Amino acid sequence: MKNFSSKFSTARDLDRQDPLRSFRDRFVIDDPQLIYLDGNSLGRLPKNTADHLDKAVKEGWGKRLIRGWNEGWFELPQKLGAKIARIIGARPDEVLVCDSTSINLFKLTAAALRARPDLKSIISDSLNFPSDLYIFQGVVDLLGDQHQLQLLPSQDRLTINTSLLQATTQANPALVALTHVAFKSGFMYDMEKITHLVHQAGGLSLWDLSHSAGAVPLQLNRWEVDLAVGCTYKYLNGGPGSPAFLYVRKDLQEELIPPLWGWFGTQNPFEFNLDFEPAAGINRFNVSTPQVLSMLGIGPALDIILEAGVDRIREKSIQQTSYLLSLFQEWLEPLGCQLGSPLDPEQRGSHVSIRHPEAYRICQALINPVPAENQPQVIPDFRTPDNIRLGIAPLYTSFADIFRALDRMRSIISRKTYTGYPLERQQVT
Amino acid sequence: MKNFSSKFSTARDLDRQDPLRSFRDRFVIDDPQLIYLDGNSLGRLPKNTADHLDKAVKEGWGKRLIRGWNEGWFELPQKLGAKIARIIGARPDEVLVCDSTSINLFKLTAAALRARPDLKSIISDSLNFPSDLYIFQGVVDLLGDQHQLQLLPSQDRLTINTSLLQATTQANPALVALTHVAFKSGFMYDMEKITHLVHQAGGLSLWDLSHSAGAVPLQLNRWEVDLAVGCTYKYLNGGPGSPAFLYVRKDLQEELIPPLWGWFGTQNPFEFNLDFEPAAGINRFNVSTPQVLSMLGIGPALDIILEAGVDRIREKSIQQTSYLLSLFQEWLEPLGCQLGSPLDPEQRGSHVSIRHPEAYRICQALINPVPAENQPQVIPDFRTPDNIRLGIAPLYTSFADIFRALDRMRSIISRKTYTGYPLERQQVT
Repeated sequence: MKNFSSKFSTARDLDRQDPLRSFRDRFVIDDPQLIYLDGNSLGRLPKNTADHLDKAVKEGWGKRLIRGWNEGWFELPQKLGAKIARIIGARPDEVLVCDSTSINLFKLTAAALRARPDLKSIISDSLNFPSDLYIFQGVVDLLGDQHQLQLLPSQDRLTINTSLLQATTQANPALVALTHVAFKSGFMYDMEKITHLVHQAGGLSLWDLSHSAGAVPLQLNRWEVDLAVGCTYKYLNGGPGSPAFLYVRKDLQEELIPPLWGWFGTQNPFEFNLDFEPAAGINRFNVSTPQVLSMLGIGPALDIILEAGVDRIREKSIQQTSYLLSLFQEWLEPLGCQLGSPLDPEQRGSHVSIRHPEAYRICQALINPVPAENQPQVIPDFRTPDNIRLGIAPLYTSFADIFRALDRMRSIISRKTYTGYPLERQQVT
Repeated sequence: MKNFSSKFSTARDLDRQDPLRSFRDRFVIDDPQLIYLDGNSLGRLPKNTADHLDKAVKEGWGKRLIRGWNEGWFELPQKLGAKIARIIGARPDEVLVCDSTSINLFKLTAAALRARPDLKSIISDSLNFPSDLYIFQGVVDLLGDQHQLQLLPSQDRLTINTSLLQATTQANPALVALTHVAFKSGFMYDMEKITHLVHQAGGLSLWDLSHSAGAVPLQLNRWEVDLAVGCTYKYLNGGPGSPAFLYVRKDLQEELIPPLWGWFGTQNPFEFNLDFEPAAGINRFNVSTPQVLSMLGIGPALDIILEAGVDRIREKSIQQTSYLLSLFQEWLEPLGCQLGSPLDPEQRGSHVSIRHPEAYRICQALINPVPAENQPQVIPDFRTPDNIRLGIAPLYTSFADIFRALDRMRSIISRKTYTGYPLERQQVT
């Protein structure tokens, strides 16, 4: 790994040389003493979004009223889907923005297993979001008929042994449903390779892109991915709880029928026919009236990502996580911290986990500095049991942010400042 | 039916005497030439909501960022649910705001049929929202095992014969899933009586309250209703596509497990356990991260309804629909219009359908007046094949609105102005 000097001037230099540095100004960042390293949980508010939403409420809802539906709201799932398609390497008619990641996962999992009765297993892993595993467990329970969920064990909560995945898949054609970038460790699968293995064995692949869309280059079409879901409130900066997306490979669309037969998924909603007739193509995976205000929060942010380009975002992300790891090795490893993420950038998304037995209280100390000390406030994420998760959102995270955050961690751990904070746990993604 | 004079001065007098007249000022109403009779499709924007949302975006998302979850967002489904509970006569721990009406219907229908394997039928009617019927059809298809959907026929697209409903229910203990107020005709069931019949036969009742919540007094607890869903963007004024609610009777909650096993429906979401454990009580019916901006649009509107009181809203609604029908009988019936709603206010919700073979073009003429004529713009809803649906939202609809709208209809139909408008159909709820 490249070594960076641990002087603050180096961070300043890296920021000056950063080709994406101007994008930081597109976001609402008004507190210079707040270092936000949780853009992988809730991305920052783009300035354009604030204006866009204000107009949507006052003009759209307030004045256009019901007419708003014929003036753009109705097509939001498809229009936003087409933008996300460009970010994840898919065709515009393969992506829809709707509902939540869990609900979309439910739709695609149930639809795939019902369309392919030879696939009795969902293969996933223990690094996956528990929220995804719960949905799989529910689908298995619902479908019965010998369906099962097989979970591959993780190695030290860090990575998955892909040989084991290969062996399991080949022994048992399955719906292989994985999260591309693991939410705790940041471990990133080789999506192309795994999808190929799954197809060789006669199975289908379903990827959760929540921690990769907008952070890591994705080529769903080129890699022949079958199904995918993802959220929009992390690196896509769509706002708190903004609706999720789903992707279905074009030539699979007519084969699958989701279990949620929705009005917005019918052929002619305004005919009000009494019998459900699935719409052609991707629209059949839609269910009902979109939550317009939350939908409208997404568009301006996607435009920023398309303008910056995911390749450039990824390049900066690797440089920034490498810089972070360099400071980690110099400052935090000697203090008893362990790396909770792969060292190889090819195996890592855009966040880094640092493990420490006192992770929870260290997070509390970072978030709530003692006022008298006049230290910056650092917002990471705590993830049970011992992860301090630091998210790099290259559109607005600076090298100076990383320097200052790790410097704070060094100070808190070396001085054991965290012992002044309570032990109880309460945290939200 | 009480007869009202058809002079404009009568409308003015009724407005002056209206005890709820001051509530109109709580809403954004800036165009005196726009008569909005579609509050049963998308309620108007309360002034407080505009401010609340602006703050939520700029302060909440923009500045508090991820901390917003611990500062109120996380509890939105329960807090808003408790407010709706007061509006529908339920306990605060029996209602949750989440997802869409269709998705909530799916959760409750599938959960009920799986918990009660003796109930093989869903009984509904042909006046129901097609969107509800589609969900039932999907659930029947998913569960298989001799499940079926039985649809009671409507009488002239207007009402349902409740003797037939009684006979069908008693012959066949079922999940009886009806919409309280029909979306086209406004026909309103006697919820208490039907629920009692369903229970006598050993079945369960599930009510869709989309067209009644906030418009008609509801006593779900007193009437011993088992399950209910409803939307918040009609009479509850929650904003375009705002999330729906669901109700599960307290003593049924532990018996039912929804098929969508969601992270927000687990016992301890932030433990990140790998196995789903349904939360106690109503929370198990939650699925995932709420769409915060759309959720936040609902609160201020609910406060207005609680302040006005549903009984007073209903009283005004009956007076207003009766006034509308009086003008209809004097002006429109002689011109060939037919009443598409029950005449008896006890059988009618808060909207009235007026049927005419040229309904579609009459709606177009109402919505798009010829500029030179300087006529007010009237927004009703067209519902296929021949309904002009006029929604009364007593919090902001005035008697003058009703007078002017019906006067416009009279003019358009008698002068056949509608013949200048195109025949093609495109409309959205």
